[in-house]
Amino acid sequence: MKPLTLHLIDLSVPGGSITRHEPDETLVRVDDLGITRGDGIFEVAAVLHGTPLALEAHLARFARSARMLDLPEPDLDLWRRAVGAAAADMADQPGLTAVKFIMTRGIEGAASAPTGWALGFLADDPAPAQAEGLDVVLLDRGYRHDVADTSPWLLAGAKTLAYAINKAALREAERRGADDVIFISSDGYVLEGPSSTLIARIDGTYITPPVSLGILPGTTQGDVFADLERQGVPTRVDTLSVNDLETAGAMWLCSSTRGAAPIRTLDGRRITVDHRATELINTGLDARRQ
Amino acid sequence: MKPLTLHLIDLSVPGGSITRHEPDETLVRVDDLGITRGDGIFEVAAVLHGTPLALEAHLARFARSARMLDLPEPDLDLWRRAVGAAAADMADQPGLTAVKFIMTRGIEGAASAPTGWALGFLADDPAPAQAEGLDVVLLDRGYRHDVADTSPWLLAGAKTLAYAINKAALREAERRGADDVIFISSDGYVLEGPSSTLIARIDGTYITPPVSLGILPGTTQGDVFADLERQGVPTRVDTLSVNDLETAGAMWLCSSTRGAAPIRTLDGRRITVDHRATELINTGLDARRQ
Repeated sequence: MKPLTLHLIDLSVPGGSITRHEPDETLVRVDDLGITRGDGIFEVAAVLHGTPLALEAHLARFARSARMLDLPEPDLDLWRRAVGAAAADMADQPGLTAVKFIMTRGIEGAASAPTGWALGFLADDPAPAQAEGLDVVLLDRGYRHDVADTSPWLLAGAKTLAYAINKAALREAERRGADDVIFISSDGYVLEGPSSTLIARIDGTYITPPVSLGILPGTTQGDVFADLERQGVPTRVDTLSVNDLETAGAMWLCSSTRGAAPIRTLDGRRITVDHRATELINTGLDARRQ
Repeated sequence: MKPLTLHLIDLSVPGGSITRHEPDETLVRVDDLGITRGDGIFEVAAVLHGTPLALEAHLARFARSARMLDLPEPDLDLWRRAVGAAAADMADQPGLTAVKFIMTRGIEGAASAPTGWALGFLADDPAPAQAEGLDVVLLDRGYRHDVADTSPWLLAGAKTLAYAINKAALREAERRGADDVIFISSDGYVLEGPSSTLIARIDGTYITPPVSLGILPGTTQGDVFADLERQGVPTRVDTLSVNDLETAGAMWLCSSTRGAAPIRTLDGRRITVDHRATELINTGLDARRQ
């Protein structure tokens, strides 16, 4: 990730104000709860030729995460403008870019305003993952499938800055010679990747697990399903067991910056990569830019 | 928490270098993995009259957390000097002070060095909690008691910056009219507080749960036990169930900045506060300063 443009959002003034900074500037205090506690939320929207993709879905999920963390309700128009400004700055970039936007609980102790910014960056080229597919391992997420209901303080399904586990899971995957992870609940339900949503095609139907399992509503998966439904292809939101995955004809991990990346092995077992379906899905995702 | 003194640790140069900064300076980049992922570790050592307490135990735990996160092994002498410098800066402070020291994985993408600093701050006065006791609620931590063994990527027992859940649990306690939390494993084992270690006195023996449950080795609890053992008072590291807590004669939550704070209610049930034992324990903790 190469940072390209940075807009700081001052949330302490009425209506908020947006100012441009150098992307490598040091702007965060060491006692910001974002860094001392991972106490904040984020989103990453892909950008094509200066236009953020699925921005409204990202903003809606941002507001949802804020509610789950008892953070102040974000002024979505302000954030829309900040993300738009960062995206516009990158309109001339030839490669895929993206904007990460973050809101933290602000400075510890003081009754301070949240800290916020939008960072535009050059994303990794998604083409290799889309063309060659991913080696994926299943890892225990530790939680039962129902913790979002029983124990909301575990923040399952909120997109928080406290992602150390997600990074540790990716290091574990690398140790096992794999590229990515699908988390499994402690009682055997298929969940999501550390930064992606699973779609499995079983008997011709595209299936993704429900957010009631304490997982994120996938913005990219949502657009894939909308596109498939327009074409009359059956989709379903449904729970999946590890056994169900054995019957899947094809699987993808979907994320903003990588699009739909097919899975080519799961715990070492070969999975059919449907190149034609993958290309159709990703063409549909790219076409979201009006 | 009021920041008093800040020492930045440059880990990109051989041997590292320590420089003093204003405590409210903005020193962190927005693409530091500490803030974007909570991908880092920390410790907080209490300071009395310029001397950090239990510093070696904190440093040992810092190194343990680094190993659990696959971070570079910290140069403990460098960190000892940085914490010592921050502590010395606060020698004239009348109240209780503390030093929080943090190491993050550094800037995302670049093969950069970790980011590090030591922040000295004025701590909250521990006297009210020690004198009056705490209202505590039991909350589900979501994990089985054995996840540290089965699923090390969940980082159970590492002191990471990804503490959003700990803060959410404290907000849940506040909603229930309480001050603090004891986490329970999904299979009924008593664990620890969001930033404290439990000691329960049952039939005259002081008991704390084992770190094999995926909890932190308590630095303050360790010193309490050492002191009790010197006095010939029986101590034990042992698993506790929620039922066991019903038989406890007294309980404390121990942490660096609050010392041993007695529990006065647990889920609304009144718990005996042993003022005399509490005072003896905290006098022992204060006497650690040589």
